[in-house]
Amino acid sequence: MIIHGTRRVFEGRVINVRVDDVEFDNGHRTSIEIAEHRGGVAIIAQPSPNEIVLVKQFRPAIGRSMWEVPAGKLEAGEDPETSARRELIEETGYRCARLHKLWTFYTAPGFCSELLHLFLAENISAGASAPEASESFEVRSFDVEEAWRMVIADDLPDGKTQIALAWARENRRGG
Amino acid sequence: MIIHGTRRVFEGRVINVRVDDVEFDNGHRTSIEIAEHRGGVAIIAQPSPNEIVLVKQFRPAIGRSMWEVPAGKLEAGEDPETSARRELIEETGYRCARLHKLWTFYTAPGFCSELLHLFLAENISAGASAPEASESFEVRSFDVEEAWRMVIADDLPDGKTQIALAWARENRRGG
Repeated sequence: MIIHGTRRVFEGRVINVRVDDVEFDNGHRTSIEIAEHRGGVAIIAQPSPNEIVLVKQFRPAIGRSMWEVPAGKLEAGEDPETSARRELIEETGYRCARLHKLWTFYTAPGFCSELLHLFLAENISAGASAPEASESFEVRSFDVEEAWRMVIADDLPDGKTQIALAWARENRRGG
Repeated sequence: MIIHGTRRVFEGRVINVRVDDVEFDNGHRTSIEIAEHRGGVAIIAQPSPNEIVLVKQFRPAIGRSMWEVPAGKLEAGEDPETSARRELIEETGYRCARLHKLWTFYTAPGFCSELLHLFLAENISAGASAPEASESFEVRSFDVEEAWRMVIADDLPDGKTQIALAWARENRRGG
């Protein structure tokens, strides 16, 4: 693929948007809209192997709130592990002895560069949360199987949380 | 939450971007960047209960290619089932007798409205694919457990595909 040119159309705090003029290997030429995102983290925190900590907050982009694993975007220059430790405390109050990196995933590779790093927080202990001014969280531990039944019933429509639950279900079975 | 105003900063074919001036219930006022997306579909197609069809294409937004379940965005006014049937044929050549809706998920609810509808294609039969001019696909059936091992090894970093595999693994076990 050849990139003939790039037009930068928006520079924000969370995303930048550019439009690339590209030519594919088969000769087809088109413009592609790309949202640039710094990437982020999602954290599996389990008070017990059958439970997972989820948070609920209003999401203006989708006009509703839903239960999600603790998560957030990387600060400039921040490494994913530091970010995961920070977000877990900010959103839930839980501290962890160690973070174990599981895997990564692109959230919307058709138009967005966001890559999420999935972490398991090991040996967690409860404490006070420290949300940012713009954030207001409800925090609750769910039974992993109860949460998965919510996914199937379409009551937990968050991609990263569905992935985290897939790991937690596997692990609960002794994987 | 109160929205005091909206500034539309980009209108594209795949995304529009707006910046909302919002006031949260706790009184905090800030601006929020939102990428508006029409939503899309992701399709689980299984030549046998242990296999899943994945496609590989170059993704300019992330600068690489990877294996993904067949997927695509809704056309204007298109219902998700029609979209799933169309995308499955375009990307893989497989036809299906019936589409079974599983559940939905937001891909990046922090800044984007995209909702993906996850479908199971039932009774599939192979045929010729019909990719759009801009698309060039490699198509392959993977053993479900082999694909999941790729996820764990961080060789299959696509969110929607990880979710599809979670369903396929469950189903294979007789769910």
